[in-house]
Amino acid sequence: MSNPVTITAPEGLPFIEIVRDFDAPVDAVYRAYADPELVRQWVGPNGYETTVDTYRLETGGRWRYIQRNPAGDEFAFNGVFHRAVPNQEIVQTFEWEGLPEFVSIETMRFTSLGDGRSRVTGWSVFPSVESRDGMIDNGMEHGVVEGYERLDALLR
Amino acid sequence: MSNPVTITAPEGLPFIEIVRDFDAPVDAVYRAYADPELVRQWVGPNGYETTVDTYRLETGGRWRYIQRNPAGDEFAFNGVFHRAVPNQEIVQTFEWEGLPEFVSIETMRFTSLGDGRSRVTGWSVFPSVESRDGMIDNGMEHGVVEGYERLDALLR
Repeated sequence: MSNPVTITAPEGLPFIEIVRDFDAPVDAVYRAYADPELVRQWVGPNGYETTVDTYRLETGGRWRYIQRNPAGDEFAFNGVFHRAVPNQEIVQTFEWEGLPEFVSIETMRFTSLGDGRSRVTGWSVFPSVESRDGMIDNGMEHGVVEGYERLDALLR
Repeated sequence: MSNPVTITAPEGLPFIEIVRDFDAPVDAVYRAYADPELVRQWVGPNGYETTVDTYRLETGGRWRYIQRNPAGDEFAFNGVFHRAVPNQEIVQTFEWEGLPEFVSIETMRFTSLGDGRSRVTGWSVFPSVESRDGMIDNGMEHGVVEGYERLDALLR
């Protein structure tokens, strides 16, 4: 049984909170966010193949990857890192290139739970309530849940 | 008489919209956002002296400036540019270093109104309604109104 993902999307506000615990120490989890070769292996829904175009986790660093579903459709995402504090915090912008007018900003906080366990708390802020709702309607939860399960496997 | 600034802060939502027209063509206004030496001269409230630490308007470029009030207190701000489309759009993150846990994201859209006039529409998105309200309570309007009046003078 994998750890549950808790997704909270407050009614009428443009936020999404995502909390997930990992049975791995915080530095290992952070490394899985910092190394593009690892990111490629776990991010996104099952059955999608991710190609990392660029990924440099440091202030001002850019990231961009393309996800390809089994039907061959491609979805590209990009952003910049506002801040990266190893084993503690990442603040980044997030754009789906299909809707470039809606850029969101995400904060991921990494905390140790002791006993070799850790927690990632994500806070996504959208430029409108509608774009937040659209993200949820487009199956974001699937991608998060399945991606984190593949991250579990990678951490083992 | 200078052009009015229209600031809209919708009740219970973490947004601020700022609309301002300029009696200058859109490329001149964009240049005043793109050139750090010009930014230094107009940004912020009257009586503050701005020192630009870094300012590179391009995707992934960083910006940081320090404002010093007449009493000698210093306020530093920084962010990264998610996107910059000359004469059209700037998307950037915004952090006041006094409260680094609240990073906002701002979109500025530049549109021509014809007859050598133009409009800047800003959309700021905060990570909480409280941090949005805090920004307003801390006299943001003053800085915007006075800064844009100095930008008028610069454009003349």
